[in-house]
Amino acid sequence: MSHEWDAHTAIEHAGDGVYDATLDDGWRVGGGLNGGYLLGVVGNAVAAQVPDKPHPLSMSAYYLSPGAPGAASVHTRVLREGGTTATVAADLRQGGEDRISVLATYGDLGRLGDDVATTAEEPVLPAVEECVDGSYAPEETRRIAPLMQRFDMRFDPATIGWAMGAPSGRGHIQAWFRLADGRDADPLTLLMVCDALPPVTFDLGKPGWAPTLELTVHVRAVPAPGWLKVSHRTRNVAGGMFEEDCEVWDSAGRLVAQSRQLALEPRAS
Amino acid sequence: MSHEWDAHTAIEHAGDGVYDATLDDGWRVGGGLNGGYLLGVVGNAVAAQVPDKPHPLSMSAYYLSPGAPGAASVHTRVLREGGTTATVAADLRQGGEDRISVLATYGDLGRLGDDVATTAEEPVLPAVEECVDGSYAPEETRRIAPLMQRFDMRFDPATIGWAMGAPSGRGHIQAWFRLADGRDADPLTLLMVCDALPPVTFDLGKPGWAPTLELTVHVRAVPAPGWLKVSHRTRNVAGGMFEEDCEVWDSAGRLVAQSRQLALEPRAS
Repeated sequence: MSHEWDAHTAIEHAGDGVYDATLDDGWRVGGGLNGGYLLGVVGNAVAAQVPDKPHPLSMSAYYLSPGAPGAASVHTRVLREGGTTATVAADLRQGGEDRISVLATYGDLGRLGDDVATTAEEPVLPAVEECVDGSYAPEETRRIAPLMQRFDMRFDPATIGWAMGAPSGRGHIQAWFRLADGRDADPLTLLMVCDALPPVTFDLGKPGWAPTLELTVHVRAVPAPGWLKVSHRTRNVAGGMFEEDCEVWDSAGRLVAQSRQLALEPRAS
Repeated sequence: MSHEWDAHTAIEHAGDGVYDATLDDGWRVGGGLNGGYLLGVVGNAVAAQVPDKPHPLSMSAYYLSPGAPGAASVHTRVLREGGTTATVAADLRQGGEDRISVLATYGDLGRLGDDVATTAEEPVLPAVEECVDGSYAPEETRRIAPLMQRFDMRFDPATIGWAMGAPSGRGHIQAWFRLADGRDADPLTLLMVCDALPPVTFDLGKPGWAPTLELTVHVRAVPAPGWLKVSHRTRNVAGGMFEEDCEVWDSAGRLVAQSRQLALEPRAS
């Protein structure tokens, strides 16, 4: 069975570490394509360039201009390749313009140590069927964010006040998450999952687009199949910017990805 | 009055976005130079390249090989320069070998918005004079880490059990911090402060060198003069790696920098 995630992030080697891709309009949100989707495309190209290190351990992306549907190319450059990890620089370009510039370290999560000591606490959410289905979003929202049709998201009712005009002001949004067509997440997919939920500023009463300046994802384990729990928080709004911390937990109760982004506060509309 | 931080991070433009520097042996810790110090040198070169955006808002560094005392060069490349921010790629090289590769976005913290909404809680520490002076470290420690002489660090007695062979296991270290010669911190110095304390794995009973794979620092405000509070925590040890979250609070009670690094667990000695 073929899944849309694999079709939309497919890359083809064009030689010299350059990979061609076709960015899909289905990932549009507002004026550009979802930043996590762009990371997935870049992540796929980097994985192809260092085939015995298939998993992103860390990826940092700096956003330069909004991605658009259509032809794109990923230009990779291996900076260091050692026994267990490889570090690669990569740029996603369209029409001669850089969209995102990335540094990443890849390895094989299956070959790394298996000791785990997590003091972070797994998010507590009501059962999936008791959460609020993201597809209930108003027609207007779905029109400007076809992105949402890629996901099956079930929001914790305790963190969805913003959708009813009553944001909590805590800076916290959490949801159950899976891809709409049922494809299970893998380490590369997690790069996207960390940027899939609405900006946490929605819960601060600031709806609107929050442009990402920088996003770093650490993938810490291969996720087990099934629903993921995704949590977004911010603890420091200052200087017209906010940080957004994301955690992704798998169905086995393991913290499989941690990310932080620095984004600009949405302008008052 | 001239301060050692300024002397040790001095750079000279060699043309074409390349800056020469001389790395100082005083920042040695174990087999290499402190990663935060390298960030300071790179940060200085980037600031020189985009002079009307003097402050790092975000800097992500990927560590490729240990820095050594002596000649080095920083190769900068402006990726995007807009009205309020500029994004720059930079590599620190010695003898043709890359030490760290960096992406950074710079701006002017004084020209950004001044709204602040911080739900993060300021670290609670006993008074400076009731904390444990880092200069009490054993002779052996000071010999392998001349780095420590650059700082005046006063550790919270509640998080220094590891120095007496009794780590708490919580993964938490915090201290008062200032430069030894009294120079006040500025936004560029904060890049270094986020990597100045001992690895948080000391508090997990794992002393020894914890090589950084990736470190991202967000500088959120210009620090007020005086002592800083620095807190390190980890919440997820897995796959032979751990994340270390650092917060730096200034004397005015403001969260001025947040960083996260992904590092390899120290090997059992």
